[in-house]
Amino acid sequence: MPGNSDAPTEPLDQDAVHAVHDGAMRVLEEIGIDFLNEEARLILAKAGCIVNSDTQNVRMDRGFVMEQVRKAPSEFSLTPRSPARRISVGGDHMLFGNVASPPNCSDLDRGRRVGDRESFRDLIKLTQYFNCIHMMVGYPVEPLDIHPSIRHLDCMFDTLTLSDKVVHAYSLGKERIEDVMEMVRIAAGLTHEEFDASPRMFTNINSSSPLKHDFNMLDGSMRMARRGQAVIVTPFTLSGAMAPVTIVGAVMQQTAEALAMIALLQTINPGSPVMYGSFTSNVDMSSGAPAFGTPEYIRATQISGQMARFYGLPLRASNACAANCPDAQAAWESAFSLWACVSAGVNVVYHAAGWLEGGLCASYEKFIMDCETIQQVVHYMQPMTAGTGDLAFDAIKEVGSSGNFFSASHTLERYETAFYAPFLSDLNNFETWEERGSVATPERANKIWKQILNEFEAPPIDEAIREELETFVALRKEQGGAPTDF
Amino acid sequence: MPGNSDAPTEPLDQDAVHAVHDGAMRVLEEIGIDFLNEEARLILAKAGCIVNSDTQNVRMDRGFVMEQVRKAPSEFSLTPRSPARRISVGGDHMLFGNVASPPNCSDLDRGRRVGDRESFRDLIKLTQYFNCIHMMVGYPVEPLDIHPSIRHLDCMFDTLTLSDKVVHAYSLGKERIEDVMEMVRIAAGLTHEEFDASPRMFTNINSSSPLKHDFNMLDGSMRMARRGQAVIVTPFTLSGAMAPVTIVGAVMQQTAEALAMIALLQTINPGSPVMYGSFTSNVDMSSGAPAFGTPEYIRATQISGQMARFYGLPLRASNACAANCPDAQAAWESAFSLWACVSAGVNVVYHAAGWLEGGLCASYEKFIMDCETIQQVVHYMQPMTAGTGDLAFDAIKEVGSSGNFFSASHTLERYETAFYAPFLSDLNNFETWEERGSVATPERANKIWKQILNEFEAPPIDEAIREELETFVALRKEQGGAPTDF
Repeated sequence: MPGNSDAPTEPLDQDAVHAVHDGAMRVLEEIGIDFLNEEARLILAKAGCIVNSDTQNVRMDRGFVMEQVRKAPSEFSLTPRSPARRISVGGDHMLFGNVASPPNCSDLDRGRRVGDRESFRDLIKLTQYFNCIHMMVGYPVEPLDIHPSIRHLDCMFDTLTLSDKVVHAYSLGKERIEDVMEMVRIAAGLTHEEFDASPRMFTNINSSSPLKHDFNMLDGSMRMARRGQAVIVTPFTLSGAMAPVTIVGAVMQQTAEALAMIALLQTINPGSPVMYGSFTSNVDMSSGAPAFGTPEYIRATQISGQMARFYGLPLRASNACAANCPDAQAAWESAFSLWACVSAGVNVVYHAAGWLEGGLCASYEKFIMDCETIQQVVHYMQPMTAGTGDLAFDAIKEVGSSGNFFSASHTLERYETAFYAPFLSDLNNFETWEERGSVATPERANKIWKQILNEFEAPPIDEAIREELETFVALRKEQGGAPTDF
Repeated sequence: MPGNSDAPTEPLDQDAVHAVHDGAMRVLEEIGIDFLNEEARLILAKAGCIVNSDTQNVRMDRGFVMEQVRKAPSEFSLTPRSPARRISVGGDHMLFGNVASPPNCSDLDRGRRVGDRESFRDLIKLTQYFNCIHMMVGYPVEPLDIHPSIRHLDCMFDTLTLSDKVVHAYSLGKERIEDVMEMVRIAAGLTHEEFDASPRMFTNINSSSPLKHDFNMLDGSMRMARRGQAVIVTPFTLSGAMAPVTIVGAVMQQTAEALAMIALLQTINPGSPVMYGSFTSNVDMSSGAPAFGTPEYIRATQISGQMARFYGLPLRASNACAANCPDAQAAWESAFSLWACVSAGVNVVYHAAGWLEGGLCASYEKFIMDCETIQQVVHYMQPMTAGTGDLAFDAIKEVGSSGNFFSASHTLERYETAFYAPFLSDLNNFETWEERGSVATPERANKIWKQILNEFEAPPIDEAIREELETFVALRKEQGGAPTDF
């Protein structure tokens, strides 16, 4: 697992960090957050918070909030069905997850289309294939050809049989979250007690900014917290739209919304694993469209890092872009987002591979391109040392002023692993590149994902466990899955 | 002028920085550098260095080197013909220069071709147009339709009449450097004494790594230093080829080569402005081709930043990429290079706009794309504060849990300048983007440079000065310009 030992970039001084904290506390004390879930409101009322049953608004004082937040672990592990795929969240660990939740997908051959189960399975395979992707942070595309009542059953069956990495459950109604917890338990061959004993999976919830947590997000996260599973709380605080037009103000609101939820979850199950999620970016003020990978996004992420460290919470952010095709704009927006995450000390990078169009489309080619850049970031994070072999004085003496280092023994001993070896970047000179057909990056990526899918082998799974999963899915389908109104 | 207040990323601890310094000193003491210029060797011999006349090798002890290096200013200004374009080099200033020296250029309409005077002038105009480009760091493309004997005269005439930004002279023979100094003096309406009194221009010299400074680079830099003009010393230490395969070793060699030259220049004119230049990147070990924007490049640049601060010298690096067309690879390589410069505390970013193919091609479209990302970096560098207006508590209270911030007074007061406003990025949703023709980034950039060139207006220049420049160019052409062997 990659570790990020760079000192984080801190745009705010310590007084300013305290001012953001104080502002977030004032939001919770003086304005409050709407909790659209009676059970949550009852728990908070019992804990001494001021609950308005008519407006569903809850105000909480900073003493309560900070007491609860301090109970949350600063680091925890997530163990999927293959224990070798266990990941550590927090500290200097930096983890990457696939793109999550777009309704559309695209590739160069078939163009842009609504998601279906085939593309869902393709993108799960890509997620499983790349070692630099550590977790499934949601459906890499929504398979719209599966009815929503049973979609979570098919999706989780595919995910748990095509992959053995950590998985995510959507907090979209009790059936969905309970079914997925049960399937993760079955896939890992655990008793209920074993499942509850340590974090095996996680959910990500978004507040309905400004200042609102909806029923399902509250319900799902409370169910997960009760069983000791991890919850990422990610307010949807787009600066200029659902949050103030100032980045510091937007992060302050984000902090208030996140801490309100974290305080609730720690009241329910003290010490249960949670993360502070940052999604703060800005909108384009000429059109109101969300923008990603912007200077504002970088600063928001860095300041979120300062707040996460202030509260001792692991941090989630994203590798986001607004571009509509996997071209240069997509690449620089994603590179900026990625460096935002590196410089902020982000622990979990959501949407790290495959995201386009502000999250409305999963691109097969972009997935490959992102893995190339993520692998570079992972290589970058290797610690630098200056021992005798690193300094290479003898090699410099051996080569002198008239040779080169290609055949120096110092080079021959190290050349195979000295540098990051790209699998997508084309480093040929122009003439060779042209001779070979002037193949641009997306076209090269296109060949690579096809080869990966052609050669894909699913990780082994015990036949009895697979049957148990099949039986569970069949039973729950018979029962109607999750209720829908269509 | 943008200021970078981020704390730099420091991959090496202080012991390791000292180890790199010690290694560089040992290279200078025990191995030495070849100075292929008798005048330089005589000066260094007189200063007590150990000179081998047969091999042209010069060894210098660390006491001498550090005594000279300490004389160099850590910050200086460069004043072109328009004093309003004065720039400060060093400290937390971050300056950007255009692409320099490619033999080829390309645009979407005409494809890739050898450079000519027309494209040279086009790219000078783009350099002048963008406020985020502070200096002309070399010919943005080599105009191969002008004979080398007089090329510098025509190029500098075009540069000084189409632009009023700081200019660079190539250290390629005494005529070229002396002619350009004279033209810069004339363009600014200065006496020789006034020209000599403060830095007006600069040269960049590359060592012939490993461990060699050639005749012309030495000659040109000594001429510049004598007249108090600035010299950037940039070893060409590609790790794995002309320098050790370890990044720390390559930066150590880079340091030795740079300090050897800086020590010479400070011996000649103590206190004359110099910069430490970093160009260390790696080669692709499968092909030997230079790679840019790599993890290795980022670390090399950051470690170079540590060394530059150790010696109290301003730092130069580059916005480099290896890609052959302005696609996603070009964008992520350049974004990585740019963030290398930001995180390293680089003062002058060479090749910031327009570079492709490892420097073999200047792309009109890439120029525009780079200016979009540079402007974002400049916007990013604005300091973040957390005053009452930034925190926006009252706006959050006003909007509450059921509104949005689009029409909040806090937003209306700030929306025009709150966020970076892109001029090239397309933030439309997919449907709108498709309806408008699915125009990808290079095609949008293509329209922009055409509009800029169509509407370009050269900065004013005094008619008498223009005539004096014309007369000088005509006279020097009559005299044959600079000698060539063809």
